[in-house]
Amino acid sequence: MKKAEACTYVIYGATGNLSRVKLMPALYHLDVENLLPEGCKIVALGRREWDQQKWRSEVRDMLEAKVRNGLDESVFERFCNRMHYHKGDISQPESYQQLAELLAQNQYPKNRAFYLAISPADFATTVELLSGVNLLSEDSGWSRVIIEKPFGYDLQSSQSLQRCIGKYLNEEQIYRIDHYLGKGTVQNLLVFRFANTMLEPLWNRNYIDHIQITHSEEFGIGTRAQYYDGSGALRDMLQSHLLQLLTLVTMEPPASMDAEALRDEKVKVLKSIRPIPKEAVNAYAYRAQYTSGVVDGENVKGYLQEDNVPESSVTETYAAMKLYIDNWRWKDVPIYMRTGKRMAAAQSTISICFKQPPLQFFRDTHIEATRPNWLLLGIQPEECIRMEMTVKEPGLEMKTRVTSLDASYRQDDEHNIDAYEDLLLDVIEGDRSLFLRSDEVECAWRIVDPVLQRWAQDRDYVSGYPAGSWGPEGCQRLFDKESHAWRYSLQPKEKD
Amino acid sequence: MKKAEACTYVIYGATGNLSRVKLMPALYHLDVENLLPEGCKIVALGRREWDQQKWRSEVRDMLEAKVRNGLDESVFERFCNRMHYHKGDISQPESYQQLAELLAQNQYPKNRAFYLAISPADFATTVELLSGVNLLSEDSGWSRVIIEKPFGYDLQSSQSLQRCIGKYLNEEQIYRIDHYLGKGTVQNLLVFRFANTMLEPLWNRNYIDHIQITHSEEFGIGTRAQYYDGSGALRDMLQSHLLQLLTLVTMEPPASMDAEALRDEKVKVLKSIRPIPKEAVNAYAYRAQYTSGVVDGENVKGYLQEDNVPESSVTETYAAMKLYIDNWRWKDVPIYMRTGKRMAAAQSTISICFKQPPLQFFRDTHIEATRPNWLLLGIQPEECIRMEMTVKEPGLEMKTRVTSLDASYRQDDEHNIDAYEDLLLDVIEGDRSLFLRSDEVECAWRIVDPVLQRWAQDRDYVSGYPAGSWGPEGCQRLFDKESHAWRYSLQPKEKD
Repeated sequence: MKKAEACTYVIYGATGNLSRVKLMPALYHLDVENLLPEGCKIVALGRREWDQQKWRSEVRDMLEAKVRNGLDESVFERFCNRMHYHKGDISQPESYQQLAELLAQNQYPKNRAFYLAISPADFATTVELLSGVNLLSEDSGWSRVIIEKPFGYDLQSSQSLQRCIGKYLNEEQIYRIDHYLGKGTVQNLLVFRFANTMLEPLWNRNYIDHIQITHSEEFGIGTRAQYYDGSGALRDMLQSHLLQLLTLVTMEPPASMDAEALRDEKVKVLKSIRPIPKEAVNAYAYRAQYTSGVVDGENVKGYLQEDNVPESSVTETYAAMKLYIDNWRWKDVPIYMRTGKRMAAAQSTISICFKQPPLQFFRDTHIEATRPNWLLLGIQPEECIRMEMTVKEPGLEMKTRVTSLDASYRQDDEHNIDAYEDLLLDVIEGDRSLFLRSDEVECAWRIVDPVLQRWAQDRDYVSGYPAGSWGPEGCQRLFDKESHAWRYSLQPKEKD
Repeated sequence: MKKAEACTYVIYGATGNLSRVKLMPALYHLDVENLLPEGCKIVALGRREWDQQKWRSEVRDMLEAKVRNGLDESVFERFCNRMHYHKGDISQPESYQQLAELLAQNQYPKNRAFYLAISPADFATTVELLSGVNLLSEDSGWSRVIIEKPFGYDLQSSQSLQRCIGKYLNEEQIYRIDHYLGKGTVQNLLVFRFANTMLEPLWNRNYIDHIQITHSEEFGIGTRAQYYDGSGALRDMLQSHLLQLLTLVTMEPPASMDAEALRDEKVKVLKSIRPIPKEAVNAYAYRAQYTSGVVDGENVKGYLQEDNVPESSVTETYAAMKLYIDNWRWKDVPIYMRTGKRMAAAQSTISICFKQPPLQFFRDTHIEATRPNWLLLGIQPEECIRMEMTVKEPGLEMKTRVTSLDASYRQDDEHNIDAYEDLLLDVIEGDRSLFLRSDEVECAWRIVDPVLQRWAQDRDYVSGYPAGSWGPEGCQRLFDKESHAWRYSLQPKEKD
């Protein structure tokens, strides 16, 4: 592990929700583990007129709600001594000037990380103004800016955002977070694929029939209608998280775990994806909205009945897509992806279906068909591997059944390091492997853009699925073969 | 399943141990399951002067000791009505004449199966005398002879036995049993290898580092010194059972499950095994005798102290061999086999060790070495599969550990069909797939013959291993690489 240098963490939007729920607790936990560098300072920026005392008591409230194993007073004292609350308005150049003066003081290390926990609409301005007071130059230390998705709203707006911030920042200074993709998940996938001899020979179009990537959620949109109705499942989850999982599962082995080597391979896969023709979008993508239904025994509203959702909204809460990767490894292997809110269970799973073996060997037996082998990788809520193999059924007759080989290697409740802890530390250490590079973001937008455009035009109808179900039936039309069907869970399929 | 035709089962040695413990219970259980053909008769031959009444009461004793779920009186009645006890001496031609007269009676179906549950030394004579009274001709029905291993004592004697019985029997009439290899085991291995797409691409020298085949027993030689001391572990178990397992694991996919297709492939593998040069036997084979020790908390004698073992015996109770299969699939993959009595646990296991993956991807991490993948196939006492895969250890650091994916699909105590039930039924049905063909037997002898010859010459020393241990340390010398070591059980290896 690289040695982290002292730095100043500047949190824009420090009084907001992300800061309260994720960033402050994560920084505190890093302090508990002695992972914050010696002399590390935290400057919290907010619009509220708070003094240092008030800020401390706010931070105490945030932490007490979140910390593992109770608040350690001595760590809390040390943590507070690192902090300074700075009142400022992100739209006012003066406040940047004041920040620059503050950070010029001796006690603030000249390595600086700016976490923009603010509305994406403000990213460009904030970066411009930071640059205006010379806080982004790397003359006396590094300067890094962390932003969270969405990185734009479509291909064009993401390119435009990139042009704006790219004027003031080198690519190496920009840390784009997809916190859904925790470091643990990425590393698990990398170890699983590249530290096991048994997988690589199978990992291609010769043996794999198709791949499914699912991210389902039980909850609805909650109070986020304003954001969500302008976004939808395709932008919110499929374009980002699901495409990330896709790249990790399908990329070629990188030369090393170095950030550039890894991101080069991810981009290469994204670039190999067959573009979806705008006129054929319906054959490649499917959208739907949840209608009222029952989740966990409770009646819940449909999407259009949620607070603040316009009654004519066609925003999808469920999005599915089929993609092909036109390279030597994956040509003609369909990759089905889906994500939805208010579904029957919350889980992230990658399911790999192998081709049928030749069964001529078993002719003249009771074995007429066997189920294909499946390899299931559970990402959430449980990190697990399942292989479904065919074995002989006990007894005198030659019949087969499916047996599951299972290994669960991490539950959410064990070692529950929040993704933000890893990520905030990676920023200090300059490890960009988990952050998205600009070409990666652009490629991902390019893949979904035809679908976004088409859906934006077709505003008269969107199909529905009952809340608490596994999604709309009509989505079946994406499948290439009659034998393809969504794997509904990690439970083994029933015997025929 | 083929329809079984009515037949007469003639059991030579009906009053002996094999008949009591295995054959009679197996035939009775087949009758319970209504699997004996209509009109099936059983003629029990023994030297004792018993009448039908005495025989019935003997059979009742045999069955009561062995049957599952208690004796069913109505089935027992039907079973007894099938049976006839015939007093006869296997060395006396008159007794064959009497048998021929009996079997000529109308109630005896003209399809005949002769089970020779007698000393192997008497096989040739019995077959000759049966032929002398025209019982082996197939003029009015089929005629089949079942014999159990040992089929000879070495290559030469097995060829000689074959020449003798081959004069009177076609190969299709001879059913050579290796009851250690139950039908369930064979079918499990075939289904596992050929009904799972995930295995075949891995099943070769490109990905497999080496294979281990173990059959260990906890018990000693018991009261069988007379037989065992003249045989030894190599003949008794390795030449037969272990080489059978080897062929099933390494053969090419047969065209069908038809007996000839299967046996063709088995013979092909045996013929591809690199011959062991007599002068290099010590580099390929290892033998040892158990010395006194502790098994299951009980002190037990060494082999030389067992009743009726000559004090100068060099008969091995442990035998290990290394073989290479010089074909495209397996060239240079060592196959290590071992079998022993009085070992630490009783189990039959096939362990497949995969090669190390390239780990350059993980340089600059804490991952310096990973354990290779293992695929373990448990045969006895539990039929199970285990795959050992490398996964990431939870936590912030990039470290790995081994996780096991397990599936147990048959315990000895479930569906505990004795191997003999399957085999006796296969004889009636004419299914020879589980029986050994003469060229298969000959090839197996040819493989071990140089070792037998060399060991027969070197009579001055045999090494020892304590009863209850996992065998002699010196056996390590068979391994090709320092990284090779016996897998001691299905338990996952400890972490480094």
